[in-house]
Amino acid sequence: MIRTHEAGTLRREHAGRPVTLAGWVGRRRDHGGVTFIDLRDASGTAQVVFREDEVGPGGVLSSAHDLRAEFCVRVVGEVRIRPAGNENPELPTGDIEVAATEIEVLSEAAPLPFPIEGDVNVNEEIRLKYRYLDLRRDAVARAVRIRSEAAFLTHEVMREHGFVNVETPTLTRSTPEGARDFLVPVRLKPGHWYALPQSPQLFKQLLMVGGLERYYQIARCYRDEDFRADRQPEFSQIDIEMSFADQDDVLKVGEDLVARLWRDIAGYEIPRPIPHITYADAMARYGSDKPDLRFGNELTDVTAYFAGTSFRVFQAPYVGAVVMPGGASQTRKELDGWQDWAKARGARGLAYVLVQEDGTLGGPVAKNLSDAEKSGLAAEVGADVGDAIFFGAGKRHATQELLGAARLEIGRRRDLIDETAWRFVWVVDAPVFEPVEDAKGEQIGWTSVHHPFTAPKPEFAATFHEDPGAALADAYDLVLNGTEIGGGSIRIHRAEMQQRVFDVLGLSKAEAESQFGFLLEAFKFGPPPHGGIAFGWDRTVMLLARQDSIRDVIAFPKAASGSDPLTAAPTPITAQQREEAGVDVIPEDEDDADA
Amino acid sequence: MIRTHEAGTLRREHAGRPVTLAGWVGRRRDHGGVTFIDLRDASGTAQVVFREDEVGPGGVLSSAHDLRAEFCVRVVGEVRIRPAGNENPELPTGDIEVAATEIEVLSEAAPLPFPIEGDVNVNEEIRLKYRYLDLRRDAVARAVRIRSEAAFLTHEVMREHGFVNVETPTLTRSTPEGARDFLVPVRLKPGHWYALPQSPQLFKQLLMVGGLERYYQIARCYRDEDFRADRQPEFSQIDIEMSFADQDDVLKVGEDLVARLWRDIAGYEIPRPIPHITYADAMARYGSDKPDLRFGNELTDVTAYFAGTSFRVFQAPYVGAVVMPGGASQTRKELDGWQDWAKARGARGLAYVLVQEDGTLGGPVAKNLSDAEKSGLAAEVGADVGDAIFFGAGKRHATQELLGAARLEIGRRRDLIDETAWRFVWVVDAPVFEPVEDAKGEQIGWTSVHHPFTAPKPEFAATFHEDPGAALADAYDLVLNGTEIGGGSIRIHRAEMQQRVFDVLGLSKAEAESQFGFLLEAFKFGPPPHGGIAFGWDRTVMLLARQDSIRDVIAFPKAASGSDPLTAAPTPITAQQREEAGVDVIPEDEDDADA
Repeated sequence: MIRTHEAGTLRREHAGRPVTLAGWVGRRRDHGGVTFIDLRDASGTAQVVFREDEVGPGGVLSSAHDLRAEFCVRVVGEVRIRPAGNENPELPTGDIEVAATEIEVLSEAAPLPFPIEGDVNVNEEIRLKYRYLDLRRDAVARAVRIRSEAAFLTHEVMREHGFVNVETPTLTRSTPEGARDFLVPVRLKPGHWYALPQSPQLFKQLLMVGGLERYYQIARCYRDEDFRADRQPEFSQIDIEMSFADQDDVLKVGEDLVARLWRDIAGYEIPRPIPHITYADAMARYGSDKPDLRFGNELTDVTAYFAGTSFRVFQAPYVGAVVMPGGASQTRKELDGWQDWAKARGARGLAYVLVQEDGTLGGPVAKNLSDAEKSGLAAEVGADVGDAIFFGAGKRHATQELLGAARLEIGRRRDLIDETAWRFVWVVDAPVFEPVEDAKGEQIGWTSVHHPFTAPKPEFAATFHEDPGAALADAYDLVLNGTEIGGGSIRIHRAEMQQRVFDVLGLSKAEAESQFGFLLEAFKFGPPPHGGIAFGWDRTVMLLARQDSIRDVIAFPKAASGSDPLTAAPTPITAQQREEAGVDVIPEDEDDADA
Repeated sequence: MIRTHEAGTLRREHAGRPVTLAGWVGRRRDHGGVTFIDLRDASGTAQVVFREDEVGPGGVLSSAHDLRAEFCVRVVGEVRIRPAGNENPELPTGDIEVAATEIEVLSEAAPLPFPIEGDVNVNEEIRLKYRYLDLRRDAVARAVRIRSEAAFLTHEVMREHGFVNVETPTLTRSTPEGARDFLVPVRLKPGHWYALPQSPQLFKQLLMVGGLERYYQIARCYRDEDFRADRQPEFSQIDIEMSFADQDDVLKVGEDLVARLWRDIAGYEIPRPIPHITYADAMARYGSDKPDLRFGNELTDVTAYFAGTSFRVFQAPYVGAVVMPGGASQTRKELDGWQDWAKARGARGLAYVLVQEDGTLGGPVAKNLSDAEKSGLAAEVGADVGDAIFFGAGKRHATQELLGAARLEIGRRRDLIDETAWRFVWVVDAPVFEPVEDAKGEQIGWTSVHHPFTAPKPEFAATFHEDPGAALADAYDLVLNGTEIGGGSIRIHRAEMQQRVFDVLGLSKAEAESQFGFLLEAFKFGPPPHGGIAFGWDRTVMLLARQDSIRDVIAFPKAASGSDPLTAAPTPITAQQREEAGVDVIPEDEDDADA
């Protein structure tokens, strides 16, 4: 190494020691013939003092004045205790400084597009274009290091549990999984294309057929779909599958994993076992299948309460309510704002009543309610004087979702969310199927809530095809602070059951064969019972590192548009590239083109 | 878990214990009313005994006769000591058997395309098509598990050295690295394409500019090129880069890594430090830049010896020899075979002389040599009575390579290679540049031996552009038993030096900008001195696991044609897929199409 010490490791006990450091020039302060710089390397920062009369002939610079921010330098000097009163107790190296006798500029830096030091807010596009500079900033570097440490802990936990780390192919065959595959033309077989996998799902199930019993991988996955708020075209997941296991076994492994991550990185002991909530309960109480348990303020089902109402709006299959503490004092504009908020979410509006100081109910809805309805309402929904009560009425699921979103918005506006809390919950017993509706909202079929290999719970195994809407899945999602970080299921391993699922989904044998043929073929050869889970790794690390976006925990993320401001990818390609990659070749034998 | 014990873990001390096992039916033997099966799971195998009168009403089968090979079953029973004389000392569970009282078929198996048990040789295409069955075979499963363990050890070693595990993008920008990129159309930006990276080279250098200082990754890499013997379109490498390091530091990390792998997996302590050989020496002594040191039988340079020869063939810039022990007794047909062997490698033939029993030299070349040349020749090349001496004459490098290949072939034919040996060597001081020749063999320019970011050794730093052919690189390859398993270099971090390299390569500023623009831009901002190494992970694990092909250590490899017999990838795509992926869109603004 061209240095003897790392800057951030120097302490009082190094005093008098000759050292050679290498790193970047951070802040600089000039005081007459004396220049102070913060020399930063990956370990931290040390103050280097240049006295013009002390920098000897080995120095390449005539003066430290020539050093500019982010020059990469090598400094030879001696560690000294800082003069009394000049210590910096906020810095681990704050007791010492390095008196430089020699300085070498390893490379210069052009003027910076944004400052590295200090917590300066910089436009994200610019940060990503100069990601290599962004990575020099403390918070960004810290997030990347946390991700690395989290990966190591994952390997450690999975190995302790006897899991085998297997790299599955990323050049594979296009299979439909609800989002679109990236396609890759193959030069050596013109007109033929690989697909990049949306997950290793099929391969991990094949590994179970292969008798591996316990597989995991930090897997790269790909989705060529519209960028929503915080998606990336390539992302990582911790992919786990195990044989001869039931739900409890998979959850135990999942809990052991997150417990280790949160203990060793966040210093937080997750209370075990992590509580379970059913999907139905989560929807009823929180209006979400990923409930944020950092605060209460649950929804109330007032369908029965309004069973005999003459108010037309509340004559609905489901009527629910959520309370906004102190919401009665909102201005007219604020209350109107809620209507816009609801409309932006596709609802017609958000009915409300205000519990006024005198205990009477205000707001436009109140006059539509009977005296009896009004008198017990606040108690029914748990509202106090000064609160607002928001209502939703309509189809159960959609209305619960609206109220769940209102609950979150209330939580944010009323500061009900404990931002320091970690609240994990398993959401279990989700439906196997959900209705597919046409544009008019008429049901025209069924689709899988998870994926078509998800097993129904044992009590529905024999009959799920008779009443698909009632069947619950042997599936589970791990939710943290209102974000789903993992999910999985016990899989179907019997061909007969798999066929009934395809029947419910309206998938013909030919379609199933075309889409999943090789998996179905494999399942003819003694597949074991198996199940698994996958953690969204970017999202998990984002929460673990207390970051706001998955882009904060990805070294080189794409911008929201899917393009990379750093490399300018994706780019047009040349005619020669098209030619060589065989992009325009249509194979003569199109027989398998619909595969 | 649906079992209480793993089959392979049962021992004498479990006798009397009730157990539930789950696994696959291996070998079966019927003896009247008693059936023995080998029940196999990931832990190993246990013998299960079914006595028809002991399998109770819980049993789903009326008889164990219905069990066929590779049925997946659950067995309830009791561990018993095997009757005296029936122990199997070759099996860890050989002292016991499990007397079954209940058996459940978890899933049936169709007739198998090949047997799972026993070391049966099966056509590789069939093995890959049914890879999930192939993976149940001992040797295949073992290789996959070794790979997993090797990955874990890698993470452990790299973490101990303070390296940060960073996942770099695989959807990135096409850059030329001597092989062809896979291209990926982007649906959201029709007419624009990502490229799959041939290595994370540019990103790891950007991470160094980013101040990470120590990066590693088990990285997936892609190459859309002709399949040679043992290549895959996607492959993995252990990618390592470090800042402020010199060659010794990088080699130390590399040695620590392989030392751990070989110690913990192969039980072999690699003697440290691993010896160095210069590229020039390796070529001179072994005729290879990846010398196999498991045997001697080195080449001899006889250029000087034949300096005054009248034999036209040996009037060449380089004449070398390699001895074949006992080769004088080869038949005429065998000696002719060597000529064909040489011609298949593009040489005109392979001159030889035979050291006959009486000490005289035989073979067609001998009569062209003077008496003086003949008399000292055997001693000069170290040949004994009964040996053959093969000669090459011509351009030094190509001729050394021919003789090196002959040396290996001699080693194989004469059984000179110690197949149990592990011989590691660092090959250092390779040239920075090698000549580019036209069809006539005339030099028309220079190309990089490694890649254009490879630094010349310090003594050539100032002058390499004046005599490119003489410049040696600060580069190193790790060779094991004649196979290169890793390679790397110290990189150029100064723009001025990089420009001189581009000048030698004949790369214009515009071309360099177009190909490496973002890296060159990054290097304007205080890049640190840095260097790294990458290990071909498939090849390393192949050697570590004593396998013959990288396909043996990849869970789901492609066949030699690049296609996957299991999934049938790659496939044609539909018109709708073409349309959605924007394959046929040519962007209007073609300005950056040549990028």
